[in-house]
Amino acid sequence: MINETYKNMLSGKSVIRELSEYATARGKEIGYEIVLDYSLGNPSVPVTDDFTNAMIDLLKNEDPMKLHGYSPTMGNPEYKAAVAASLTRRFSLDYKPEHIFPTSGAAGAIAHALRAVTVPGDEVLVFAPFFPEYIPYITGTGAKIKVVEPDTTAFQINFDKLDEALTPSVKAVMINTPNNPSGIVYSEETLKKLAEMLTEKSREFGFDIFLISDEPYREIVFDGIKCPYPAAFYDNTITCYSFSKSLSLPGERIGYVAVSPKIPEAATIAMMCGQISRGTGHNCPSSIIQLAVARVIDQTSDLSVYEKNMNLIYDELKSLDFEVVRPGGTFYIFPKALEDDAVAFCKKALKYDLVLVPADSFACPGYFRMAYCIDTGKVERSLEAIRKFVKGEYR
Amino acid sequence: MINETYKNMLSGKSVIRELSEYATARGKEIGYEIVLDYSLGNPSVPVTDDFTNAMIDLLKNEDPMKLHGYSPTMGNPEYKAAVAASLTRRFSLDYKPEHIFPTSGAAGAIAHALRAVTVPGDEVLVFAPFFPEYIPYITGTGAKIKVVEPDTTAFQINFDKLDEALTPSVKAVMINTPNNPSGIVYSEETLKKLAEMLTEKSREFGFDIFLISDEPYREIVFDGIKCPYPAAFYDNTITCYSFSKSLSLPGERIGYVAVSPKIPEAATIAMMCGQISRGTGHNCPSSIIQLAVARVIDQTSDLSVYEKNMNLIYDELKSLDFEVVRPGGTFYIFPKALEDDAVAFCKKALKYDLVLVPADSFACPGYFRMAYCIDTGKVERSLEAIRKFVKGEYR
Repeated sequence: MINETYKNMLSGKSVIRELSEYATARGKEIGYEIVLDYSLGNPSVPVTDDFTNAMIDLLKNEDPMKLHGYSPTMGNPEYKAAVAASLTRRFSLDYKPEHIFPTSGAAGAIAHALRAVTVPGDEVLVFAPFFPEYIPYITGTGAKIKVVEPDTTAFQINFDKLDEALTPSVKAVMINTPNNPSGIVYSEETLKKLAEMLTEKSREFGFDIFLISDEPYREIVFDGIKCPYPAAFYDNTITCYSFSKSLSLPGERIGYVAVSPKIPEAATIAMMCGQISRGTGHNCPSSIIQLAVARVIDQTSDLSVYEKNMNLIYDELKSLDFEVVRPGGTFYIFPKALEDDAVAFCKKALKYDLVLVPADSFACPGYFRMAYCIDTGKVERSLEAIRKFVKGEYR
Repeated sequence: MINETYKNMLSGKSVIRELSEYATARGKEIGYEIVLDYSLGNPSVPVTDDFTNAMIDLLKNEDPMKLHGYSPTMGNPEYKAAVAASLTRRFSLDYKPEHIFPTSGAAGAIAHALRAVTVPGDEVLVFAPFFPEYIPYITGTGAKIKVVEPDTTAFQINFDKLDEALTPSVKAVMINTPNNPSGIVYSEETLKKLAEMLTEKSREFGFDIFLISDEPYREIVFDGIKCPYPAAFYDNTITCYSFSKSLSLPGERIGYVAVSPKIPEAATIAMMCGQISRGTGHNCPSSIIQLAVARVIDQTSDLSVYEKNMNLIYDELKSLDFEVVRPGGTFYIFPKALEDDAVAFCKKALKYDLVLVPADSFACPGYFRMAYCIDTGKVERSLEAIRKFVKGEYR
């Protein structure tokens, strides 16, 4: 008999995917370069040449048995050592290879982290707006998702709402900074206050609440700032990372869980990830990809295009009087729609071949997301369309 | 709070892994070439040059954005088309790309297949002896494992025991042919009889029992035979495959689920795998690996060494009067120990630097497994040690 839960999931359509499919179909009619497609968060810059050269070097010079052989259950030692050393260097926490578990991107990392620190029935807090895939990530473990209402003034944390939501059934809190979809970077002040509240509630409840920090956009930050590192503020933090965005390798499925060395059982939690993998059939990322990423661990693709695009769009939106918070990173921007119904708003935008994503599925109705990981030429062409759209429909 | 289930799994030691670690440590003392290590099922021949060249060609000539970009949720179309065409060509079942779901090796394939056709609490049948990782694969879904006692005369199926075990709580039956650890290939007669029994019981119970066929050793067969293809005998079959053994790519985590086109809901089941991935964080295998494997889909590494090794070992064991069934494939052989306690037997063998794995963890006490995916020179050296061991301890 077929599992009806998974079968029923098939009828739940992803708005992002539907819009992206629309954009592709429309592109076939009028030429894709004309479609102003802001739907998908797919990196638009290539991986570094050093990565490509590392891959070729490994293929040419490494013993294929070693290169393509099984990674140990806990992952390739070179990759783990490179990740631990890089995090230690950058964030002054003493990560060792035994705190690192290689995963199939951030999705794999989150799936492991959640299973390690919750049991079915526990609640996991997320902050609106959030990436819709958090729902299957969390419910897939048997835990329940609990949403904290947004702070729409700055898209930092609404601490009053957090205080209300943080009950003893909550075992883990998930954050995502820089944030998809808002583009906002959590400030040091936010992280400090969050740490204080989690520490206080942990004491009150008699157990340590885990912070699961999803950071695939950590390296995409603007104005020369650095993204404050959540694990530096709250000890009980499990960091989930992916090289999908920073190195433009989304298809290679490479990331990691980094358990804060400040957690007394840190190495145990990382080893538990190895056990969790046995049941989910996840196992390690590709061995050659682990080795190649280890060689370019501190590199990123040339990410400057995202900042350039953001500035163009932000300035245009502001000049058109959109309510919008300036992103500190990512390749997303998250303005308020010009009518209450963002779905209707985005539908009207399609008339101008502008593909925008209404934020209802991000648990933040009334807003929309633009993923500006596209060519700057197209961004420039889109500004005229945005003006026409706003003036044609709302003025 | 830490999930105690996964934490407790850490104390459960794998006998295979312990013995392999022993062999490595012993190798550091006396030189690994002297340790007659039959513990691990790791391929001992390299991938084909065509695969390596395909990888290099992709890296040099493909657009990196396309090469390393997200695969569609359902996997890379070229890979799926190549797999479907190859299966259709070889096994005369009309597989289409929509019946194929790319996975992280056979482990990923089994994890998806099980979740697609069971719900927590269902029973899944396995036949002793079986690969011990089947336990976390099955229990990880929430289903229960139910073991059918072995046919130790031929290591085909003990149909009387199967008939007893096949109750209405069983929703899926798992087979593994060619078999780890026995090395046996299920005969056409066995598969025909199995299909008849499953068909009859399905009718009796009022639902279709699924056959999950784990086939990573499909291409490693001896004496020029072909491994009968289970899905050709029983319509309701989900085939789980990995290129780990046939192409010696275990670290690259590349395999697939192939849902038999004879199943009316075949495409739905494959699509459900995409949904299952969302919750387990599995997603697709590496995109470049999918593309490179697609280009060499019908190749295998030079697998002849395994047959050569098998013949050397089998002849020696027979001449020493071991009770052993001649393997039809894989790189395993599964003799009866010379005393009832195979653990004690394998312990004594260590004195001769022979690393053999007692089959208690394969649910077949009294037997042991030799993984002869090693260099033929070492196999030859081991024959003398086996003779000394048997004569020193048992004659």
